[in-house]
Amino acid sequence: MPTISTPSKIAGTKGYGANVIFSGSTSEEREAVVADVIRDTGATLVPPYDHPDIILGQGTQALELEEQVAEILAAEAKEGSQTTNGERKKTQLDAVIAPLGGGGMLSGIATALQGTGTLVFGAEPSFEGGDDGRRGLAREPPERIESVKTLTIADGLRTPVGVIPWSVVSDKAKVRGVCSVSEEQIKAAMRLVLERMKVMVEPSAVVGLAVVLFDEGFRKLVEEEGGEEGWKIGIVFSGGNTTVEAIGKLFEAPKKEAERAEGILGKNGERVAENVAG
Amino acid sequence: MPTISTPSKIAGTKGYGANVIFSGSTSEEREAVVADVIRDTGATLVPPYDHPDIILGQGTQALELEEQVAEILAAEAKEGSQTTNGERKKTQLDAVIAPLGGGGMLSGIATALQGTGTLVFGAEPSFEGGDDGRRGLAREPPERIESVKTLTIADGLRTPVGVIPWSVVSDKAKVRGVCSVSEEQIKAAMRLVLERMKVMVEPSAVVGLAVVLFDEGFRKLVEEEGGEEGWKIGIVFSGGNTTVEAIGKLFEAPKKEAERAEGILGKNGERVAENVAG
Repeated sequence: MPTISTPSKIAGTKGYGANVIFSGSTSEEREAVVADVIRDTGATLVPPYDHPDIILGQGTQALELEEQVAEILAAEAKEGSQTTNGERKKTQLDAVIAPLGGGGMLSGIATALQGTGTLVFGAEPSFEGGDDGRRGLAREPPERIESVKTLTIADGLRTPVGVIPWSVVSDKAKVRGVCSVSEEQIKAAMRLVLERMKVMVEPSAVVGLAVVLFDEGFRKLVEEEGGEEGWKIGIVFSGGNTTVEAIGKLFEAPKKEAERAEGILGKNGERVAENVAG
Repeated sequence: MPTISTPSKIAGTKGYGANVIFSGSTSEEREAVVADVIRDTGATLVPPYDHPDIILGQGTQALELEEQVAEILAAEAKEGSQTTNGERKKTQLDAVIAPLGGGGMLSGIATALQGTGTLVFGAEPSFEGGDDGRRGLAREPPERIESVKTLTIADGLRTPVGVIPWSVVSDKAKVRGVCSVSEEQIKAAMRLVLERMKVMVEPSAVVGLAVVLFDEGFRKLVEEEGGEEGWKIGIVFSGGNTTVEAIGKLFEAPKKEAERAEGILGKNGERVAENVAG
């Protein structure tokens, strides 16, 4: 793990019995350490997203989601709460939206749901070009963007879409579209989930919810295709690797943020310029 | 609601369809507004804890807990995971621990569990005498403490135990004991729940967990009575009315806390003293 990993993520990993070996945070540093470990121990490399087995494994969450949704909709239909006005009874979701970083999860979900009638969408942060998937799809013809350099708060989604995931994400029959949201939209969605749903999520987890709440293009599509009744949408939250300190920093008062930007406050909130009137 | 209520709590209440009327935050101010509303509308007063119906209603959570535990323990017994070494198979919890403020919830739980063999404990914050329940029980003879003035971070537990709840809490056959924890212990328990369990809780919610983790008296009791096997303990978390800003402030760097205490930083982190070197 990179030494800069969230302490709760490191503690959690160790808690499940892992032998954690640390590296620097660039991909070169990581890969060098991995090469050493493989040479010394004969370990097998499990790539984080760019491998068919990983993609298929991540796709099983769509199968679980389908099962849970079928149960919920069956219970609703029994209660009759969804069957007034002669509405058709839905037995499945109209759409699922999931975060898109390296693309292992999204392409797994899309593979699992292909042909079921449930549409699949990806969600990305737009900050500093973090929406490489959406931008690549917008090219004529569509083309994978191979490198991204963004410091979006959705730090789990800073990687470009991998080669194999791209072959799924760029297939219109599998992924209907990719939408992107701003840092402020991600923060607003995160506040909603933390304060009202009481679920601890990291910024990367809520990009799908931010799209559903704020992306005009997506909302217009739902209006056009879902009509009066709208769509039933499954939103994937992944994950929750954050700390109380990170949440405090993310939502600190704008004044302090501005001061930090101006170099009046240092990285940890300490005052670096002297004689500044309060 | 007091005007100083957590914004997410106000929004949540309105979201459930309530007509929210605001008051000042002291009990005198609240009660004056309540008297006006009752006079103008003929409304019925529902007290927050000091009423038998409220206590019995809150007690139903213990019935739900019993049901859920029975299901979990039955599933465990089936898998055989808890039955190695010839251990007796448990079919219920050894103890339940819940936060103690006004005492409606704890006395409801204790009433529901009386005679079941599951012991009931209360948990309080000790800061500035917030542990009025524990202190009242320690008097000879035990006597309810009628007023408390504490600014503990567990702000849901600042009230003294009510008259009717006290009649339950002080009954040894119903509540086995009340333990208290420090502000730092509450924060440590809160960090664990937020960062590892991924559940958004307010400080008041985790006093029971803090007792289980840190209170030496409680831990010794478990050792003495639970032996090698220990106890299966149900811990009640209640509630989750907090904001991202409140969490940020609670866990901010010690340096800033110290500056705030010294009056160098104001309530919102703005610098109030001039010419202070960083």
